[in-house]
Amino acid sequence: MVNETDLRSHIRTIPDFPHKGIMFRDITTLLAHPDAFARAVDAMAGSFKGVEVTKVVGIESRGFIFASALAYKLKAGLVPVRKPKKLPAPALREEYTLEYGSDALEIHADAIARGERVLLVDDLLATGGTIGAACKLVERTGGIIAGIAFLIELDFLHGRDRLKNYAVQSVIHYQEE
Amino acid sequence: MVNETDLRSHIRTIPDFPHKGIMFRDITTLLAHPDAFARAVDAMAGSFKGVEVTKVVGIESRGFIFASALAYKLKAGLVPVRKPKKLPAPALREEYTLEYGSDALEIHADAIARGERVLLVDDLLATGGTIGAACKLVERTGGIIAGIAFLIELDFLHGRDRLKNYAVQSVIHYQEE
Repeated sequence: MVNETDLRSHIRTIPDFPHKGIMFRDITTLLAHPDAFARAVDAMAGSFKGVEVTKVVGIESRGFIFASALAYKLKAGLVPVRKPKKLPAPALREEYTLEYGSDALEIHADAIARGERVLLVDDLLATGGTIGAACKLVERTGGIIAGIAFLIELDFLHGRDRLKNYAVQSVIHYQEE
Repeated sequence: MVNETDLRSHIRTIPDFPHKGIMFRDITTLLAHPDAFARAVDAMAGSFKGVEVTKVVGIESRGFIFASALAYKLKAGLVPVRKPKKLPAPALREEYTLEYGSDALEIHADAIARGERVLLVDDLLATGGTIGAACKLVERTGGIIAGIAFLIELDFLHGRDRLKNYAVQSVIHYQEE
């Protein structure tokens, strides 16, 4: 059983990054601690124990960190979802809106076979725009979303409301800014 | 014993990406194959068997993929080296030259304790500009470079010549473009 409070103690909060008024949850202090990092990965995997997964999808770039360790642990393949123009082969693209402006994500069109069971992974769930775009990309490849794993969820931003069709699990929750 | 030829067969070569005349070695096909991905990680770890390592440093963003799985496997901490302005706490910066222009990398100043033994990880060694900057960053924190692990080395670009002071191991070698 993972102790959320203990893992949370390894996260450093940095005020006013990247913008004034944002309390940034810095996971690098958790990553740097061998035992905390391993327990975080194990907790993310443990939330989907018994769930069949053949591909783990990680979202650039902090999402790669947890997706990679999870793919290795679960003996699954790893599929990167990347910022535009980074993937060399034919790719699908989804645009999504940000607080100011818009951004886009891409996935290789041949990365996931129709009917494959996919675990999506990112470090943090905020308003859910990024993960929403990643879900659309996976479904356009024909993959089935078996679950979505986050290390951190900012409950007060209600990103989970966009993900009602999916099994969403987060290890650490922040109830308020 | 890892079969380099077999692992290499999982890498896809894409001509003229990102520029005309470049033969891009696309690792996403290897990553997507569960067994090939696991064997690649195991081979990178195996090259440093018996070498004491307390931190694994991964270079943004493909380097995160192998660094993360290696840190998990080796029970070490993971330290990201990132593009400028991504790290929220006080950071050290190194600039380095590219074919056209220059770029920079950063590491958190407190990420590695003096005397810690560090394994640096990236997916590919080309001319060595990026890894050279990462080595300087690690040494400025006081860390000792116990080794440098690549999945792929482009032997014909002689990046290894810049890294003569270090133990460099690559799983897959390309002798020519």
